[in-house]
Amino acid sequence: MDMSGQTTPSDLLGAYRSVRATTEVLASPLSAEDQTVQTMPDVSPTKWHRAHTTWFFETFVLGPHDPRYRLFDEAYSYLFNSYYEAVGTRHPRPERGLLSRPGIEEIGRYRAYVDDVMEELLGHGLEPDLSDLVALGLHHEQQHQELLLMDIKHVLSRNPLHPVYRAGTAPLGGVPPKAGWIEHDGGLVEIGHRGRGFGFDNEFPRHAVHLTPFALADRPVTCGEWLSFMDDGGYRRPEFWLFDGWATANAQQWEAPLYWSRDPDDPDRWLVFTLSGLRPLDPDEPVCHVSYYEADAYAQWAGLRLPTESEWETLASAHGDGDNFLSAPSQQGPPHPIPAVSTNAMFGDVWEWTASAYSPYPAFRPAPGAVGEYNGKFMVGQQVLRGGCCATPAGHVRPTYRNFFHPGSRWAFGGLRLARDG
Amino acid sequence: MDMSGQTTPSDLLGAYRSVRATTEVLASPLSAEDQTVQTMPDVSPTKWHRAHTTWFFETFVLGPHDPRYRLFDEAYSYLFNSYYEAVGTRHPRPERGLLSRPGIEEIGRYRAYVDDVMEELLGHGLEPDLSDLVALGLHHEQQHQELLLMDIKHVLSRNPLHPVYRAGTAPLGGVPPKAGWIEHDGGLVEIGHRGRGFGFDNEFPRHAVHLTPFALADRPVTCGEWLSFMDDGGYRRPEFWLFDGWATANAQQWEAPLYWSRDPDDPDRWLVFTLSGLRPLDPDEPVCHVSYYEADAYAQWAGLRLPTESEWETLASAHGDGDNFLSAPSQQGPPHPIPAVSTNAMFGDVWEWTASAYSPYPAFRPAPGAVGEYNGKFMVGQQVLRGGCCATPAGHVRPTYRNFFHPGSRWAFGGLRLARDG
Amino acid sequence: MDMSGQTTPSDLLGAYRSVRATTEVLASPLSAEDQTVQTMPDVSPTKWHRAHTTWFFETFVLGPHDPRYRLFDEAYSYLFNSYYEAVGTRHPRPERGLLSRPGIEEIGRYRAYVDDVMEELLGHGLEPDLSDLVALGLHHEQQHQELLLMDIKHVLSRNPLHPVYRAGTAPLGGVPPKAGWIEHDGGLVEIGHRGRGFGFDNEFPRHAVHLTPFALADRPVTCGEWLSFMDDGGYRRPEFWLFDGWATANAQQWEAPLYWSRDPDDPDRWLVFTLSGLRPLDPDEPVCHVSYYEADAYAQWAGLRLPTESEWETLASAHGDGDNFLSAPSQQGPPHPIPAVSTNAMFGDVWEWTASAYSPYPAFRPAPGAVGEYNGKFMVGQQVLRGGCCATPAGHVRPTYRNFFHPGSRWAFGGLRLARDG
Amino acid sequence: MDMSGQTTPSDLLGAYRSVRATTEVLASPLSAEDQTVQTMPDVSPTKWHRAHTTWFFETFVLGPHDPRYRLFDEAYSYLFNSYYEAVGTRHPRPERGLLSRPGIEEIGRYRAYVDDVMEELLGHGLEPDLSDLVALGLHHEQQHQELLLMDIKHVLSRNPLHPVYRAGTAPLGGVPPKAGWIEHDGGLVEIGHRGRGFGFDNEFPRHAVHLTPFALADRPVTCGEWLSFMDDGGYRRPEFWLFDGWATANAQQWEAPLYWSRDPDDPDRWLVFTLSGLRPLDPDEPVCHVSYYEADAYAQWAGLRLPTESEWETLASAHGDGDNFLSAPSQQGPPHPIPAVSTNAMFGDVWEWTASAYSPYPAFRPAPGAVGEYNGKFMVGQQVLRGGCCATPAGHVRPTYRNFFHPGSRWAFGGLRLARDG
Repeated sequence: MDMSGQTTPSDLLGAYRSVRATTEVLASPLSAEDQTVQTMPDVSPTKWHRAHTTWFFETFVLGPHDPRYRLFDEAYSYLFNSYYEAVGTRHPRPERGLLSRPGIEEIGRYRAYVDDVMEELLGHGLEPDLSDLVALGLHHEQQHQELLLMDIKHVLSRNPLHPVYRAGTAPLGGVPPKAGWIEHDGGLVEIGHRGRGFGFDNEFPRHAVHLTPFALADRPVTCGEWLSFMDDGGYRRPEFWLFDGWATANAQQWEAPLYWSRDPDDPDRWLVFTLSGLRPLDPDEPVCHVSYYEADAYAQWAGLRLPTESEWETLASAHGDGDNFLSAPSQQGPPHPIPAVSTNAMFGDVWEWTASAYSPYPAFRPAPGAVGEYNGKFMVGQQVLRGGCCATPAGHVRPTYRNFFHPGSRWAFGGLRLARDG
Repeated sequence: MDMSGQTTPSDLLGAYRSVRATTEVLASPLSAEDQTVQTMPDVSPTKWHRAHTTWFFETFVLGPHDPRYRLFDEAYSYLFNSYYEAVGTRHPRPERGLLSRPGIEEIGRYRAYVDDVMEELLGHGLEPDLSDLVALGLHHEQQHQELLLMDIKHVLSRNPLHPVYRAGTAPLGGVPPKAGWIEHDGGLVEIGHRGRGFGFDNEFPRHAVHLTPFALADRPVTCGEWLSFMDDGGYRRPEFWLFDGWATANAQQWEAPLYWSRDPDDPDRWLVFTLSGLRPLDPDEPVCHVSYYEADAYAQWAGLRLPTESEWETLASAHGDGDNFLSAPSQQGPPHPIPAVSTNAMFGDVWEWTASAYSPYPAFRPAPGAVGEYNGKFMVGQQVLRGGCCATPAGHVRPTYRNFFHPGSRWAFGGLRLARDG
Repeated sequence: MDMSGQTTPSDLLGAYRSVRATTEVLASPLSAEDQTVQTMPDVSPTKWHRAHTTWFFETFVLGPHDPRYRLFDEAYSYLFNSYYEAVGTRHPRPERGLLSRPGIEEIGRYRAYVDDVMEELLGHGLEPDLSDLVALGLHHEQQHQELLLMDIKHVLSRNPLHPVYRAGTAPLGGVPPKAGWIEHDGGLVEIGHRGRGFGFDNEFPRHAVHLTPFALADRPVTCGEWLSFMDDGGYRRPEFWLFDGWATANAQQWEAPLYWSRDPDDPDRWLVFTLSGLRPLDPDEPVCHVSYYEADAYAQWAGLRLPTESEWETLASAHGDGDNFLSAPSQQGPPHPIPAVSTNAMFGDVWEWTASAYSPYPAFRPAPGAVGEYNGKFMVGQQVLRGGCCATPAGHVRPTYRNFFHPGSRWAFGGLRLARDG
Repeated sequence: MDMSGQTTPSDLLGAYRSVRATTEVLASPLSAEDQTVQTMPDVSPTKWHRAHTTWFFETFVLGPHDPRYRLFDEAYSYLFNSYYEAVGTRHPRPERGLLSRPGIEEIGRYRAYVDDVMEELLGHGLEPDLSDLVALGLHHEQQHQELLLMDIKHVLSRNPLHPVYRAGTAPLGGVPPKAGWIEHDGGLVEIGHRGRGFGFDNEFPRHAVHLTPFALADRPVTCGEWLSFMDDGGYRRPEFWLFDGWATANAQQWEAPLYWSRDPDDPDRWLVFTLSGLRPLDPDEPVCHVSYYEADAYAQWAGLRLPTESEWETLASAHGDGDNFLSAPSQQGPPHPIPAVSTNAMFGDVWEWTASAYSPYPAFRPAPGAVGEYNGKFMVGQQVLRGGCCATPAGHVRPTYRNFFHPGSRWAFGGLRLARDG
């Protein structure tokens, strides 16, 4: 699905319907109670995601561009603004879970109300600028589809009953081959979006970067490899850790990736909480739900390092494949990483932490208007991740796509790939 | 309704059915989302109250006394234990709002399951000890009915939409008369429960207390009187405040009772959030949702003091009346204090903070067994309140009844009555 | 030494010189660095105590009563006010340790400056009101002498070098006898200050109290007895603990009294940090530096209870003795509790936690003026302790003397005596 | 002064004596009390800096390389380790201000003891490896000289008495010219240390970087320009701020740079706290003590951006001058920025925040051994600053020198220079 401004009106309408419907499908296994809970400030309730993605169209498309449009509820401007300062004050993020009203039925009505107007608007064809805003809104909603899954996984994980989001067969994988290296001679390369098709402002402009020779592993690190790190005292030996990472690991008492727990019946075995409930750890799967701090410590332990985003993009543009995405035809059961079978597996399964801080590209310009707050204002203190994951909607990522999280975050589907100097 | 051990089997069965049904009636206006939210550690979700009161009967009556009884769900022993250390570990109180499961339907099934077994048990008549435990469970559930209302009021109050728990006519009151004094000559008196009918262990034993001459006001302080305190700088003048109170008032930026807010259209007018939504302040109502710190500051400002619990009980036993209780025939609309009309109004409307710290009576003995944790272990750092309030089930309180909260708590329906030395 | 208003002018001048000199003697073993550090908000630096006690005379005696008096430094009104709201704003308590200036020499000059004027004033004889204020200032300074010792003990204890405040022979004691009981038949008694000699406002008025029959142990609980409590799981068994106490003990990871530590060379042996450094625990000494929560848990474990302050005062007035006070002729080495040898030992050694919350006596009136903030505004959330301790200046306490701390405090020299119903 | 490994033995001994003496000169205006206080976790007491720099030589030079060396005090290994995990546990950083012992005299003896042994060692000439370690120790001590000044400035600033570190004439400057632009055509450049003379490991290896055309302002932003930003609502308008910056600015209630305060006698005028006390703001000085967040907000407000470190180094290597460094011949009074007079002023006065996150250069290798913890483990979540400041010892910085702080830090002498795309 291509949701860029170059599509025909009917393509855009079709994309709109498809993306909006997917959100509802993702929420459908969840009760009113499930959709209400917030377990930490980073997490938002499911119903908030459903409303906020709707608010985006109301606020940036319908409000400014349709003079006859009447807001569904004026209070929603305040309740469902995430972080856009230019459009007014907002309800504090850590308090999203304090709101029992509006309930999920009311939010369903809100979505239907906005969809009606949007679909009528899209039926008539749009000016390119507006069409771009709608496309942005759809990519935005796809990002929230992944967030919805990350968030509900965290919510359910905090419940001693280990609830199941959606039952499912364990995805099939296999034993991944021993990792090999993909080498590159370095030199002057170009990275960044070429300008055809949709891209977020942070992917622009395309620009030259000089690389020294390097090599990347041909698959992500697996849970089995991570167990070796743990068995070698990985979480107890400060020599592998960044200073801030060691402080965080101790303060939060990390001893394994998020969602791993010891089997109460056999403390030597590990269980992992998934969207289909608690199950034994599969050592062949890519390791997931680790922070940047942990990923970097692992790389130090291995005597290696993490890739930069330039290195990653250079190889991914040339070689990358991978198809374990949300709703991809091959995906069985709810999203979960599966063992790599390809030696070019760079997309899907797990986001890969890079050694690159999230900074503006040279001559970066934020998008004009309020949506200019989309990316630029987060460009400090975070690390770039690349490649998408099993909870990222199929078709949403590109080789140039830049995701970013604070280095201590673990609730994203974040894993790692090793790198070395050439 | 008398729920003590002296009742006949059919009385106890009737009481059981009535109390249990009342809890469900109180929860009935609330959606699944409403019943799930926890807005501060002191607050519990509605569905937790519904489950915990059921857990009480399961844990203290059915489990120990009915060998054939099978737990509805073993995990509930952990999830719905409030603070009883003797019966095992428990889910942390501040995390009650993180649990989306079990949902309200499942909790409804839990209640029905336990009610079926309980009703069969009660139908056969019980040993006195067991009968006493059932009576305790019913009084316990009545306490949680009040907590359920306190808690949902807090939950709804944190929502910018100002949701209504239950629509209702503003209760009728009238202009209260100027406060008069009820005088007492002091001397040796007796306080505490005489032993007929139900009483909590903290009301025993009855014992002699020596009082110096004193007088109590014949009605609680009103909102209008509180406005005079505020207008005179009550919240800005440290000379009226206890040291800990002043620190708390500043840290929490108090400038009025909880649930008061300035009218956005006229900042000189005050609105008050009630269980029937936001409405203008009625100056003739008893002031409510003030902490002990505020109550004491008010008394200092007035050049007076708060009553001790011995003084209060002495006069209430002789003179007290009042009928604004939950579900009392005279109560219209959802619970809210109404202007006093009687000069003996000592019960209902608002709990009255006393100057007495919550301590054991001389020769106090906790109840035997796990229910001995009911009261005794809270006997430090809290203040006694007397008289019941508009959210207390009718019939639940007595002149000897001792309620208690930390001095900074404001979410109970707490008000005050003035006292002076005789 | 009697520092009440009834003394002759030369008595008061002598008392002034003696008390002021004692403070300097207590500070004399401490370096400039020692006198500057604050290790927790409750603790004040030594130099702050030296200045604040001087500020008291400047602010309440010299400033208001001597029109020619010129402040030593205007900024000190702000820096060295402890908690008197009526005399203006003050430097925040938790930030006292952030002040390197004024240094100890400057504070020495401040003390000398005020002493010169005070001694001249006292030489002329004073009006009774002013004489009472001076006496209050001296009792105030004696309280700060004890605080100075409590605080520097905490400061030195946080240093891994285990510094010594003052070297000293271990005080002589002996093996205390098995505890016996002192019984009382109860009935109507009187407690509170009779009005002859100095007393703080919180000791007034004398009033009748009705007691039920009771008995008190004839000596405090010892370290050896406390070890039995610990060996029986005292710090791990919630059934003995008040609810707030258990929460505090867990949050602060208590496993023994403050200042106890395991011998690194033999973890089964306990060491105790004292003002003369680290030394082996003496099982015959009264246990010290326990909180109210711990004292109450011990009493519950023993199947007994703590005394009320009325019970304590009734017996202490009749029977009490004890002489392990600061600078008492019998005190050897720096202040530390010693094994009891008398069966009437109720004074000195350790303050004894009582079951009584710190509340106003019936018809209590705070002292007029700013010094009225001395006691009354602390009358919530604290527990009364009685009897004085080894760091209390000899002559400072009386049977009616009421000390008070929050129930979680451990840095005072607090111990306990058991009680039972008669 | 060149302290690299290429010097002769007598040069290194001279450098040792000079650097060590400078530390003592910097501490000499400070009392024992001044040298003891810690006002926030980032700040260390003066006496700790004096001891830690000594510990460095003891731990990395004398201990491992001189078998006869005996530690001055074994406990110091623990007390004065800053963050080196490889050499054992350490006293917690936020508790450095809790230590009154060792006092400043003892620390003076510690310095003299180590100096004696070091000077004897240096007199004999050293192996190159050891010589490099000594040079590292001297550069390390120079960094702590700047930290000592930053820290004592913070300590004194928290004192309501506004103490003076060292009196001094206000440095002479003049009115800086209107800022001009230094342009660069971009293309492939090299940055990083060339390998001659001393450099920290984080400056290596030299490597190619591709730049797009850009321009840098020819002087830092001044206080007067900053006032325009403030007058235009700079601290109240979220549109200029990074998301994390806005949250920090609000949480810490920033309304001006650190150390600025309104004149109590004229709230429209600003005062600035300096090492020579409080004085009126000079609008022509470079603005100082701003965080990265503020610097970036200023640049956004100006419609410009901050330089990258590659851009900065490229121009500084070619054009930079500046001489307002600690103890530079031209420096009058205690360290403070002065108005720029040169159009090539890139060194001294204020550290300049860059838009570059502090990351390893391609093929970076930490130094071997425990000193490998010196730089690499801080390479996340911080921003690079370039150029040195008025508190940096003269001769300490280079065009390739990389300083780094967290983006919210303000206690360093941090300012900014504007940049734009070419």
